[in-house]
Amino acid sequence: MGTRHIRAVITMSLESAVQIVAEVFHKYAGEDEKKNTLNCEELKKLLEAECSKKCGAGKMKCLMKRLDENKDGEIDIVEFGALIGMMAKKESCS
Amino acid sequence: MGTRHIRAVITMSLESAVQIVAEVFHKYAGEDEKKNTLNCEELKKLLEAECSKKCGAGKMKCLMKRLDENKDGEIDIVEFGALIGMMAKKESCS
Repeated sequence: MGTRHIRAVITMSLESAVQIVAEVFHKYAGEDEKKNTLNCEELKKLLEAECSKKCGAGKMKCLMKRLDENKDGEIDIVEFGALIGMMAKKESCS
Repeated sequence: MGTRHIRAVITMSLESAVQIVAEVFHKYAGEDEKKNTLNCEELKKLLEAECSKKCGAGKMKCLMKRLDENKDGEIDIVEFGALIGMMAKKESCS
């Protein structure tokens, strides 16, 4: 029997992107007792596992400082959205 | 010939979400001469078409004010990322 090729064109919506952002955020934010924020270590793990980005201590410190708008030492999901925006900016320039 | 069902499990990565965010942003930001920012009208169109969200003038004014961190009257892609974060927050609570 001949092989048949099925080419599925999957158009992903902005809403599916929002869902992925929520899922990935909570996958790592939930590791410590503060379930709705990412600490530095959790963000580092997320970047390594989800974006293959290895960041040293210095770079993580800068990133946390840049994202942590309310200065509580952690990154909430809206602050994490700004990181998605930064990645999208890089994506646009690549 | 019997129909065969193919169940494709599509796992979407954070990187694919970032790509969608960049594509959708530039689809609407590019409408006026300022290609790298969304004005109020462009953001309104984006929300209606991509998220089926109809916002009145008052709500749009509030949203622009909330997102426009650098107060230039427009929304750049990093500021748009914060909107994605707000949507992801709502997604998490639903």
